[in-house]
Amino acid sequence: MHNRNKGQELSKSIVYGRNSVLELLKAGKRTVNKLMISSTARGTVVSEIIKLVKEKGIAIHSVPPEKLDKFSKNSQGIVVEVSPVEYIELQNLIDKIKQYYKPLLVILDGINDPHNFGAIVRNCVAFGVDGIIIPKWRAVSVNETVSKSSSGAVEHIQISKVININQAINLLKENKFWIVGAEKGGQILGEVDFPFPIAIVMGSEGFGLHNLTKKHCDFLISIPQRNIISSLNASCASSIILYEIAKKRKQ
Amino acid sequence: MHNRNKGQELSKSIVYGRNSVLELLKAGKRTVNKLMISSTARGTVVSEIIKLVKEKGIAIHSVPPEKLDKFSKNSQGIVVEVSPVEYIELQNLIDKIKQYYKPLLVILDGINDPHNFGAIVRNCVAFGVDGIIIPKWRAVSVNETVSKSSSGAVEHIQISKVININQAINLLKENKFWIVGAEKGGQILGEVDFPFPIAIVMGSEGFGLHNLTKKHCDFLISIPQRNIISSLNASCASSIILYEIAKKRKQ
Repeated sequence: MHNRNKGQELSKSIVYGRNSVLELLKAGKRTVNKLMISSTARGTVVSEIIKLVKEKGIAIHSVPPEKLDKFSKNSQGIVVEVSPVEYIELQNLIDKIKQYYKPLLVILDGINDPHNFGAIVRNCVAFGVDGIIIPKWRAVSVNETVSKSSSGAVEHIQISKVININQAINLLKENKFWIVGAEKGGQILGEVDFPFPIAIVMGSEGFGLHNLTKKHCDFLISIPQRNIISSLNASCASSIILYEIAKKRKQ
Repeated sequence: MHNRNKGQELSKSIVYGRNSVLELLKAGKRTVNKLMISSTARGTVVSEIIKLVKEKGIAIHSVPPEKLDKFSKNSQGIVVEVSPVEYIELQNLIDKIKQYYKPLLVILDGINDPHNFGAIVRNCVAFGVDGIIIPKWRAVSVNETVSKSSSGAVEHIQISKVININQAINLLKENKFWIVGAEKGGQILGEVDFPFPIAIVMGSEGFGLHNLTKKHCDFLISIPQRNIISSLNASCASSIILYEIAKKRKQ
C-alpha cells in the first residue's frame, strides 16, 4: 500500500494516479489531450481533477474501471494522455521567427487524418518551415500516430495550437505576414513570386479551405494537374508547394 | 443443394466455389493475387486448382475451414482474391505509348506500403504518367487498400507487373527509354533537363534503390532538402518529382 498515491509515468504520453495527474494539471507545463476517468471514481482529489480539466477545456471520457487496468493496476481510476510535444503560443512563435531572413509558416485548416498530418510535418521539416499552426477543435492533435507518421519530425518543429484560425491569421497579418491559401483555381504555383514573411494555408482532405479562411488570404495558389481524379492527397500537395517555395527562397 | 457447385462473385475481388475458381484460373483473363484453401479440402477439382495455381506462381494460403465461412457458407473450401485491376504486358505497354509525344513511365522498385502505393498511383494520374511498372515479388500488388488510397486512380492508368525489374529496364532501354533513378546524392531535381522517353525509378520506403537497379540507371536525381530527418515519405517524393517533370514537359 505504500505507493498507492505515487503514480508513475508509463511512457511519454500516459500519466496515471490521482496525485500524479493532479500535480501534472496544476503545473500546467505539459499539454493534456484527454482525461480517462473510471465511472466509479469518487473523492476530493477526483473532484479537484475534474474541475481543473473542465477549466482547461480538456476532453473527459468516463470509462468502465477495467479499461484503465490496461494502463496500470494502480491507475486509481485516473489516466491522462499527454501530448508527445509541447505547443508554443502563437505570439511567442511569431516573436521568435520574425527576425529570420525569410520566415515561413504553415497553417493547417482542419487536417483530420493523423497519417496525413504526420507526413505534412515531415515535409515541413524537410523544407525548412519555421512553424506549424493547427486549430484546437475539429482537427487531429499531435498524438502517437502523428509522431510516428512524421518519422520523429514533430521533435524538430514548433507547433502552435490556436482556438480560432481566422484570429491567428489576423495576428499574423498585424505582424506583416502574407497569407497564401492553397486552393483550386488559384495562381499557378511555379509562376508566383513568394513574398516573405509568409504563411501557407492548407485545407482539409477533400474539402479544401473554409470559405471564411479563403477570404482572409492575400492570394491563392494551385498546383497544375490533370483533373481526372479530384485532387492530390493533402500531404503530397503540401510537399510540392513547400518544395517550390524552398527552391524560390534559395534564389 | 442445387447450387452447390455454382459459386458466386461476392465483390469484384473475391471469387469462391470449386468450379467457379477452376474456370477463372483456366480462362486466365483475370489476375489472381492469392488462393485461400481450407486445410480439409480434398478431391479431383481441388487437386486441379492447386496444380494450376502452382504453375501460375500464385500464393497458396492453407486456412482453417471456419475462416472461409466469412466469405461464404458455400465456399466449398476454395476462395481466391482477384486483383481489382488487370495488368498489361510490358511489351504491350511500350508498344502503346512509344509513339506518344513525350512518354513517361514510373518504375516502383519494391514499395511495400499499400497506402503509399495508392498515393503514388494518384500522383501518377494527376501528372500524366503513361504507365507504372511494379515487381511481381517482394512488393505490394494492387489490392483493395491500394485502390482506395489511390481514390480510384488505379482505374485511370496502366500497370505492368514484371518478374524482374532489371530485365524490364533492359527492355525499356532497347526501346530508347532513358532510365532515371530517384536517389540521394543524384543531380539536383530542378536543375536537370529530362530527356524523353523516360522511366523514373523510385526505391522502397526507407531503403532507396537496390544496388543493381541503381547501376542500370542512366542518371540519378535527388530532391534538395534539410537532412534533419532521414528522407521524405515515398509518395511525397514521387509527387515532387512528377510535378517537376510535368512542369518541364510543358515548356
